[in-house]
Amino acid sequence: MAQRLIVIGGDAGGMAAASQARRRRDRTDLEIVAFERGRFTSYSACGIPYWISGLVEDRDDLVARDPETFRRDFAIDVRLRHEVTVIDLDRREVVARDLAGGGEVRERFDLLMYATGANPVQPDWARTDAAGVFGVQTLDDGDALRDWLERDPAPRRAVVVGGGYIGVEMAEALILRGLDVTLVEQAEQPMSTVDPDMAVLVADAMRGLGIDIRTGVTVTGLTEEDGRVTEVVTDAGAFPADVVVLGLGVRPNTALAEAAGLPLGPSGGVRVDRRMRVVGVPDVWAAGDCVETLHRVSGQPVHIPLGTHANKQGRVAGINIGGGYATFPGVIGTAVTKVCDLEVGRTGLRERDAAAAGFAFVSVIAESTNRAGYYPGARTMTVKLIAEQPSGRLLGAQIVGWSEAAKRIDTLAVALWNGMTVDDMTSLDLGYAPPYAPAWDPVLVAARKAVDALPR
Amino acid sequence: MAQRLIVIGGDAGGMAAASQARRRRDRTDLEIVAFERGRFTSYSACGIPYWISGLVEDRDDLVARDPETFRRDFAIDVRLRHEVTVIDLDRREVVARDLAGGGEVRERFDLLMYATGANPVQPDWARTDAAGVFGVQTLDDGDALRDWLERDPAPRRAVVVGGGYIGVEMAEALILRGLDVTLVEQAEQPMSTVDPDMAVLVADAMRGLGIDIRTGVTVTGLTEEDGRVTEVVTDAGAFPADVVVLGLGVRPNTALAEAAGLPLGPSGGVRVDRRMRVVGVPDVWAAGDCVETLHRVSGQPVHIPLGTHANKQGRVAGINIGGGYATFPGVIGTAVTKVCDLEVGRTGLRERDAAAAGFAFVSVIAESTNRAGYYPGARTMTVKLIAEQPSGRLLGAQIVGWSEAAKRIDTLAVALWNGMTVDDMTSLDLGYAPPYAPAWDPVLVAARKAVDALPR
Repeated sequence: MAQRLIVIGGDAGGMAAASQARRRRDRTDLEIVAFERGRFTSYSACGIPYWISGLVEDRDDLVARDPETFRRDFAIDVRLRHEVTVIDLDRREVVARDLAGGGEVRERFDLLMYATGANPVQPDWARTDAAGVFGVQTLDDGDALRDWLERDPAPRRAVVVGGGYIGVEMAEALILRGLDVTLVEQAEQPMSTVDPDMAVLVADAMRGLGIDIRTGVTVTGLTEEDGRVTEVVTDAGAFPADVVVLGLGVRPNTALAEAAGLPLGPSGGVRVDRRMRVVGVPDVWAAGDCVETLHRVSGQPVHIPLGTHANKQGRVAGINIGGGYATFPGVIGTAVTKVCDLEVGRTGLRERDAAAAGFAFVSVIAESTNRAGYYPGARTMTVKLIAEQPSGRLLGAQIVGWSEAAKRIDTLAVALWNGMTVDDMTSLDLGYAPPYAPAWDPVLVAARKAVDALPR
Repeated sequence: MAQRLIVIGGDAGGMAAASQARRRRDRTDLEIVAFERGRFTSYSACGIPYWISGLVEDRDDLVARDPETFRRDFAIDVRLRHEVTVIDLDRREVVARDLAGGGEVRERFDLLMYATGANPVQPDWARTDAAGVFGVQTLDDGDALRDWLERDPAPRRAVVVGGGYIGVEMAEALILRGLDVTLVEQAEQPMSTVDPDMAVLVADAMRGLGIDIRTGVTVTGLTEEDGRVTEVVTDAGAFPADVVVLGLGVRPNTALAEAAGLPLGPSGGVRVDRRMRVVGVPDVWAAGDCVETLHRVSGQPVHIPLGTHANKQGRVAGINIGGGYATFPGVIGTAVTKVCDLEVGRTGLRERDAAAAGFAFVSVIAESTNRAGYYPGARTMTVKLIAEQPSGRLLGAQIVGWSEAAKRIDTLAVALWNGMTVDDMTSLDLGYAPPYAPAWDPVLVAARKAVDALPR
């Protein structure tokens, strides 16, 4: 008789696992049922800001594979608007509520894939029924926000709360739509995913776009009128708002896992082993924004919600569920983003992370150009490297610059992944031609500077 | 008493060595004299096509450091238009001819830096005094070509002989200047620095620009009239030409080295050790386009003339001359170029190189996009990987694509440098955001395909 795999969560992690398992085991060998509480499967949450801005025209473009494709091509029984409310490990059953039709279903499983994603951080003041307050975690959230922005009369003043990736990207999206945008950030600077000496470059660029950045400001509440938000109230005064976007980060969605007794780690995510098996719970797997993963540099468990990790982890889980062998070796914290034409990349540890992990280190910032200095369009590229002292091993890197800056972080990410020292890196054979780099690539310029900064 | 360093050749390799040596030893400890037969020091030969096209306006922009800077800031006695004609190792002397003023000078040395660069390959038919025939090896060559193009009436028909990097870049430069351009190539395709299945994409793009590509054609002579070239004669007929550009590659400039008894390797370049010392000849160093270097993948000595290697090798020699310790660990054949908006990158071995080196291998070509598929401006990126069989170790990679394709080769170059397998590579933590990559980066898509192609 066929085994039965239940997938909880129909986005990247869950569906990558389901489709990989299907590649290796056909329907006579493995039944697959996937529950998704929303209305979409396998969509790009990272694309939402670009759809809000209007750069991406059609919401459906963000959906990589729709439920019909999963049903038809993968024989996966996808059930949208079904929220799993109970995992019963003893009876090997899940209970799901039908959010559209009402009622409950019970489904038996032999194998369980936990891929519930993450929930936005919601302080008490943000728990409101007032219209005009939005997260941008799911495509349903994006849908609701976009409807609100297209009302007549259209909202004019936006306040974005939180200056992480989503906050920064949403601030850009809203200013591109023509709104007045204020970004409120509790820390000294937005974009704290890079060190302050690099984040300042990003903040300057955002101000250049006309975004009003207020830092060191704590939100204390919202003012509402007639069921709509009208102000964001802070310890530095109130900011009028026709629309409020919450970008305060996310936490692993583990309520269901906790209730079922699945183990959580110190980062708050579900604990998994290298094969994406939930630690100590046979036949249960997990992947994506709900799990914690190993940071290969610090050696610590971390929670880094990102579609690319969810896809890779899901694939690994699916290969293993399918009877193959694959492992997910952890992450190094690589990320890229942009604010209009300014590009930002990072990998590894920031200074504060390196200090927290107990490393002695040096850090250098090197300015160079993205092309040969004489080539038209050459612009400044700023590369920061953090290297262990005295070994010289690369611990982290950050890049801020213009054209072709962000993805150069990959060069540094692969160097870091392989444990290279900055001294070794000065010899790297990187592509050179005037349209693409000076004879000394910015990465090499930075490596040389780091070598000079290390004690001899 | 101060030691005396004589540098033969005032371009990247020689002057990088001289300036690094100066950083570590002041003028009371080390005198430095540099002979350069041309009129320029430390210029970007790779930039010449972009100056010919008019994209770079001022020739002097291509000069990284002029002689006056070397004299003033580095206390280096630079002698332009001086061609060294003899190295006398027994007497520790060089003889140089003053090309401008006439006469000869003799200079004693304690340390010698050999950095004579490369000479263009010149078949018998190209040894002509006819006006209108140009190499583009030196800035002086570029100067002469540009003067010729600016004559009145301006040349209208150009024939470029040879379809390597310089040939392709010069063909583009000349068509951008409005000339009719024919590119004549002996092989089946231009851009043979990538495999034929990738080179075809480049040839298509060149034809799209209006470049008339003739392949499988051997040049047999030139027709001249009144001291000017008028035709390029081939085994497939004659091509009218007001200007002929030779892009037939270069060979290490070793005449002087040979005469002095410096050892040459199988690639034709001067043999050096890891510290850039000429093998078996005390106190003599060499760097740049005149030396051979280790290919780290094949383990074979190779001659790869490229400014970025010359700079690195010169730096290594200079650190060692200066009393420090540095090594040059070899190259992996990374290179990038473009034909208008089409970008090309390569690293490691091509299929023919891998076969010649004795590897068993698989190769795959994966098509993906440079951005998330839904993001505006997403275009095809084609990635080819060559992996050892059965180990899966990456041996080579090639990329052809549009925006932000070429420099992605660096990601693969660093993976290859570190001996990664394609299986390991599928887990790499590369930057992901919709403007920069799909959730599966093109590099990872190709790695997955290569894993699937390997025997299990």
